[in-house]
Amino acid sequence: MSLPFIERRRTVRGRLRSGGLEAVVVTQAANRYYLSGFTGEDGILIVSGAGAALVTDGRFTTQAAEEARGVRIIRQKGPLEESVGRYLKSRGWKRIGYDPASVSIEQFGRLRRAASRHRTWHRLQGAIESLRARKDGSELAQMRKSAILAGEVLESVLELLRPGVREFEIAAEIEYQMRRRGATGPAFPSIVAFGSRSALPHARPTGRKLRKNELVVLDLGAILGHYCSDITRTLFVGRAPARIRRWYQAVVEAQQAGVSAVRAGAECGEIDAAARKVLRGHRLDRRFMHSTGHGLGLEVHEEPRVARGQRQRLSPGNVITIEPGVYVPGTGGIRIEDDVAVHLHSSEVLTRVRRDFIEL
Amino acid sequence: MSLPFIERRRTVRGRLRSGGLEAVVVTQAANRYYLSGFTGEDGILIVSGAGAALVTDGRFTTQAAEEARGVRIIRQKGPLEESVGRYLKSRGWKRIGYDPASVSIEQFGRLRRAASRHRTWHRLQGAIESLRARKDGSELAQMRKSAILAGEVLESVLELLRPGVREFEIAAEIEYQMRRRGATGPAFPSIVAFGSRSALPHARPTGRKLRKNELVVLDLGAILGHYCSDITRTLFVGRAPARIRRWYQAVVEAQQAGVSAVRAGAECGEIDAAARKVLRGHRLDRRFMHSTGHGLGLEVHEEPRVARGQRQRLSPGNVITIEPGVYVPGTGGIRIEDDVAVHLHSSEVLTRVRRDFIEL
Repeated sequence: MSLPFIERRRTVRGRLRSGGLEAVVVTQAANRYYLSGFTGEDGILIVSGAGAALVTDGRFTTQAAEEARGVRIIRQKGPLEESVGRYLKSRGWKRIGYDPASVSIEQFGRLRRAASRHRTWHRLQGAIESLRARKDGSELAQMRKSAILAGEVLESVLELLRPGVREFEIAAEIEYQMRRRGATGPAFPSIVAFGSRSALPHARPTGRKLRKNELVVLDLGAILGHYCSDITRTLFVGRAPARIRRWYQAVVEAQQAGVSAVRAGAECGEIDAAARKVLRGHRLDRRFMHSTGHGLGLEVHEEPRVARGQRQRLSPGNVITIEPGVYVPGTGGIRIEDDVAVHLHSSEVLTRVRRDFIEL
Repeated sequence: MSLPFIERRRTVRGRLRSGGLEAVVVTQAANRYYLSGFTGEDGILIVSGAGAALVTDGRFTTQAAEEARGVRIIRQKGPLEESVGRYLKSRGWKRIGYDPASVSIEQFGRLRRAASRHRTWHRLQGAIESLRARKDGSELAQMRKSAILAGEVLESVLELLRPGVREFEIAAEIEYQMRRRGATGPAFPSIVAFGSRSALPHARPTGRKLRKNELVVLDLGAILGHYCSDITRTLFVGRAPARIRRWYQAVVEAQQAGVSAVRAGAECGEIDAAARKVLRGHRLDRRFMHSTGHGLGLEVHEEPRVARGQRQRLSPGNVITIEPGVYVPGTGGIRIEDDVAVHLHSSEVLTRVRRDFIEL
């Protein structure tokens, strides 16, 4: 159980050495888990050349000792950052790494004051996130299970989509079905949007009732064994007008073009462009106002970003979403999303739900 | 609907004037909602002497226009902070406020670079949080409903606590019942801990089955109309040994002492001390290793903190939790938590669930 965490800390240690650093403070929750196994909400992990220590408060010390094997557990006194600063000082380390994206101005001030002078702080931007982006075999196995679970949950609620049901009732059922299948919970607030509300890409479920002849967007994901899934399907309750069918067809083609473009070595921007180009061919590209996808793993949004102009190249072990959409305010929206893993010589769609147009 | 948001922005504007600032950037999600009504996940609100603007990405612009009445909606180009920086520059404001606790080192760098020089940045630490801590009448009405809902949900799952049921099944049922009663979702991952796992104050539900003669800790909260509740009850399945009964009695007394100490003008540290003193009388204070409570509102942890030595004084409109506990690693834990509103000449327990010892 603790083996992957030990190996990951070893990798970080290698980076510290090559960067001439003595320790790194890990403040971001997913990074902290990734390197220690600790699942508590609060705490700062310190990985040094010699070992690792986790500073956390009394609510979490027992749990930390169980979860973070091989890590020294230190119970904080006073504000967290001050305890960490004092610990760094006590060890005498001079060159410390931190992630500027996950340390606030206030935290940084506290850390530095408590650690006192004679220490230099070095930006390690996205260093752990880039490790996390390349999933190993057991992480991919877990993500596969999470993706299949999300698809099963999505299919399980289709039969409830009858006129009169409310958006939040479907959302409740989705999250219940996730839990019943062993998920820790939803990876993000489930999106259930009926009719014109489907034109809002991130609609929160309301008491709105489903009517006959409406679009339904379902966008949901589970956390299973710490790993997130994310799937979207759009369907129509009733008999869809020709215009809606055309839009749907365009989104399916765009999504397939994105999925087909996924391969190790491709630039993320190319994937985005492949999907966008199809929509342009249908004169719908102006109706697609978000990016094509995002990395997925311990967090529902992580590296790499699959957006316009992104030069970063896909690597084996990356898992990304491909989720183009078309949104017409006042009328409705269509989005189709799958999770795709990048392998050395192939790619793999992890979510397994039909994409043909469903009329219920 | 938009009236409270307009009034709150007016209050902020008054503070800007008295601080000699021209605008403030609001990055934290709950603060952004509190001042605009916008519920999207991403965006930065700018409140200035003249008005307000919200910079967000294409996923949220339609939604923002519906939710944030009276606020100018600006669609971001490139990274969010760069769009905000350019907007600040275009308006020519020189003195800008920000919250150092919710701006990362990286965000701050981007904001400053894009806004260019000739601007000074001023720390407005916790300024909006302190407004949020004093709820108005309609906020309190909403929190009362949220607290009652949480209590009803807690009571609804008691009948499921039979040997053989798993922690995550109860958690699933809790969150399902919340949704069915109109909650947006849980305010935090529900805690369902059986047997010795109840000694972990923040245990996550597992597949662990309930056995006869075990403690059960249920700690849950809902988000209803944006406002959080938070309630904990501990019960025993079977016939409890005398030691468990003694611990329970001590925790009830400590919790009651905390609740009784709540009054406008009291220091938060006094509330904490009142609960702690009772546990000390039972020689159990070393078994209580977290703080007595926390503020509650749009977020499940907000101002004020109810912890040892906190000098901040309670004000009318504050809502806090009172949740002492006793934890014995390897054996089990007991925690009782209620939500309490502070009024001018009284206090009000919002959660309405019996606190006597329940043996199922």
